[in-house]
Amino acid sequence: MRILVLGGDGYLGWPTALHLSRRGHDVGVVDNFARRGYDLEMGVDTLVPIAGLQRRVRVWDEVSGLHVEPYVGDLTDAEFVSRVLRDFAPDTVVHFAEQRSAPYSMIDQKHAVYTQVNNVVGTLNLLYAIADVDPSIHLVKLGTMGEYGTPNIDIEEGFIEITHRGRTDLLPYPKQPGSFYHLSKVHDSANIMFACRIWGLRSTDLNQGIVYGQETPETDLHPDLATRFDYDGVFGTVLNRFCVQAVVGHPITIYGSGGQTRGMLDIRDTLACVELACTNPAEAGEFRVFNQFTESFSVSQLAQMVVDTFPGRVEVDHLDDPRVEKQEHYYRAAHTKLLDLGLVPHLLNQSTISSLLQVVDRHRDRVDLGAIRPTVQWRATSSTLATAGSATRESEPTDA
Amino acid sequence: MRILVLGGDGYLGWPTALHLSRRGHDVGVVDNFARRGYDLEMGVDTLVPIAGLQRRVRVWDEVSGLHVEPYVGDLTDAEFVSRVLRDFAPDTVVHFAEQRSAPYSMIDQKHAVYTQVNNVVGTLNLLYAIADVDPSIHLVKLGTMGEYGTPNIDIEEGFIEITHRGRTDLLPYPKQPGSFYHLSKVHDSANIMFACRIWGLRSTDLNQGIVYGQETPETDLHPDLATRFDYDGVFGTVLNRFCVQAVVGHPITIYGSGGQTRGMLDIRDTLACVELACTNPAEAGEFRVFNQFTESFSVSQLAQMVVDTFPGRVEVDHLDDPRVEKQEHYYRAAHTKLLDLGLVPHLLNQSTISSLLQVVDRHRDRVDLGAIRPTVQWRATSSTLATAGSATRESEPTDA
Repeated sequence: MRILVLGGDGYLGWPTALHLSRRGHDVGVVDNFARRGYDLEMGVDTLVPIAGLQRRVRVWDEVSGLHVEPYVGDLTDAEFVSRVLRDFAPDTVVHFAEQRSAPYSMIDQKHAVYTQVNNVVGTLNLLYAIADVDPSIHLVKLGTMGEYGTPNIDIEEGFIEITHRGRTDLLPYPKQPGSFYHLSKVHDSANIMFACRIWGLRSTDLNQGIVYGQETPETDLHPDLATRFDYDGVFGTVLNRFCVQAVVGHPITIYGSGGQTRGMLDIRDTLACVELACTNPAEAGEFRVFNQFTESFSVSQLAQMVVDTFPGRVEVDHLDDPRVEKQEHYYRAAHTKLLDLGLVPHLLNQSTISSLLQVVDRHRDRVDLGAIRPTVQWRATSSTLATAGSATRESEPTDA
Repeated sequence: MRILVLGGDGYLGWPTALHLSRRGHDVGVVDNFARRGYDLEMGVDTLVPIAGLQRRVRVWDEVSGLHVEPYVGDLTDAEFVSRVLRDFAPDTVVHFAEQRSAPYSMIDQKHAVYTQVNNVVGTLNLLYAIADVDPSIHLVKLGTMGEYGTPNIDIEEGFIEITHRGRTDLLPYPKQPGSFYHLSKVHDSANIMFACRIWGLRSTDLNQGIVYGQETPETDLHPDLATRFDYDGVFGTVLNRFCVQAVVGHPITIYGSGGQTRGMLDIRDTLACVELACTNPAEAGEFRVFNQFTESFSVSQLAQMVVDTFPGRVEVDHLDDPRVEKQEHYYRAAHTKLLDLGLVPHLLNQSTISSLLQVVDRHRDRVDLGAIRPTVQWRATSSTLATAGSATRESEPTDA
């Protein structure tokens, strides 16, 4: 298949592109380097050094003999989107190209507006371009399990049959997203569902859990193929951050009680799920939703697993939760559709965590302790980003 | 109360401002004249001539002895929004200031993106400004019954109790909006609900039906207090348009079978509902939803009522439905919350339609037949607007 990966320079976009390339697909990647720009803005950096996109593409050529075609541009530029679709003529577009951090979207008014405009307009432009250029293109869109929030009933995959006052209908599952970022994904899902209905487009919404891990069979082939590893308070995800904290001797920071439970998956399963969605496309006019995670854990359980795996001593700290979220809640979410398509999950175990800890250990001299602490408060309308420098100046030695 | 009406120069915003002013509230109006700009873009005009905002305000001063404070600016300008809230210091903000035409949002990519960015960013800026300036301000937001679509179960007011696999929760009612405009209102509702949750804001979402009528006790006091009357294929709403067609001897144009059923209300009830929402504010942290309509009618029923009321002969034409919508469907929607607060509806009858027909008759020389036909096709990604001139040139005499 011809597959275009939008956001193909990012944490998951890049390894997905390589995986699809090695699996025999013709792959193009599109990126505007917004993700690298956020690091510059915040004064932080990926733990694992990463090469530039053109260098990555060149190394992949050399190592694999396979070509990935890079396109540099912005999805909010409608003409660029149409031009790339016409030029690459994909069968499938995999869309990772969104601002994907909840804390980043909650920094202040400008970041909230940026996140929603960037994500919603980029996706709208893509829908129009697909409808204009080739409505048979299958859109595989990265959503998030966070769209659902934490309802007190089972979470289904996108739709729920509701019986009410003696009548029954299958309706979109009610959403209760927890940040302006998560809201942008809900907006996207609604826009995409509508485009499938009016224009007969085909789309798969992958409501993904929290991803952990950094190594994939393809990125392991050369250091310049590595993908990024975020551990900072804004873009770092929970398990990756806990591993960094363990290795550098910083207490593991749990927000609130730690009872918050979320769906999670291994980075290698992200690649497998995206490929399964691509090779088993939605029907024309179909908007389908897959819940893309393999296991659920509470934050406390994750912390305990790191404590149990790390060879040295690890302390656990509970911080005031900077987010507004339920800390103890019911959580049971369906995730059978990708398993039905053949997904064989990599489940989280001590060996996975060990390899994560090894990744961190190799780059421990790059850890910036000042970047870890959460600085964005949901209850405030404006938070100051503690850049590496200022945080270091402000914090006590015991605090780092 | 001090009430700031955003979009206070528009079809409903202006008469709402006058009504609230006459009821003893201190009223300010904010507008960027976007609505007048759409007319210029499309080459159409309101059937009833309207004065400029500053002139309207001056006449209201003279006629009533009451002052309405005008602010000219754009909600997508965050600094303007904060400045106005600080300056006027409202107890309540009534938010009409959105692009409100479904066909306009479906013209093409630019109009879809404009509609969603204008509406979503304006509302986001407002939420941030309220949280910063005074979180006790009550936000009364105009939504639409079109957010719900036409599910096969009863529509409730914003939330629905769902029992699923033995567990029960009260969840946001699933939405199935039918245009990029309606989607923008769904996005707004989700953003507002979240802001109430994290910042303790108070908001009432008024999911309004289709409004008919043009005269209110206040606008009737002077010709320069009149509000607009739209009958064109893009901004004209169904009953207003049917009355124009009857008066000028044009067949009434039903899209499709006419089985489409919608909630409707008299313009005077809009004013009463908004005032009831203002004077009975939501609690701090509360996001509540009122379904703001008084009766449901199918399009065919409305056409028949015009046929029965108009003294002359009226033909009825069925056009291919330019929209993608169910033409025959179940429709039963709750609307008790505003009645519980004391709303006494003006129900639709021959006398209401007669006065509408009289309004049209007074201005029948201003009717542009070329503007009536629907030009925006939901199934197309780009529609040409038939401006008055080109439509007149293109249409056969029998067609007008």
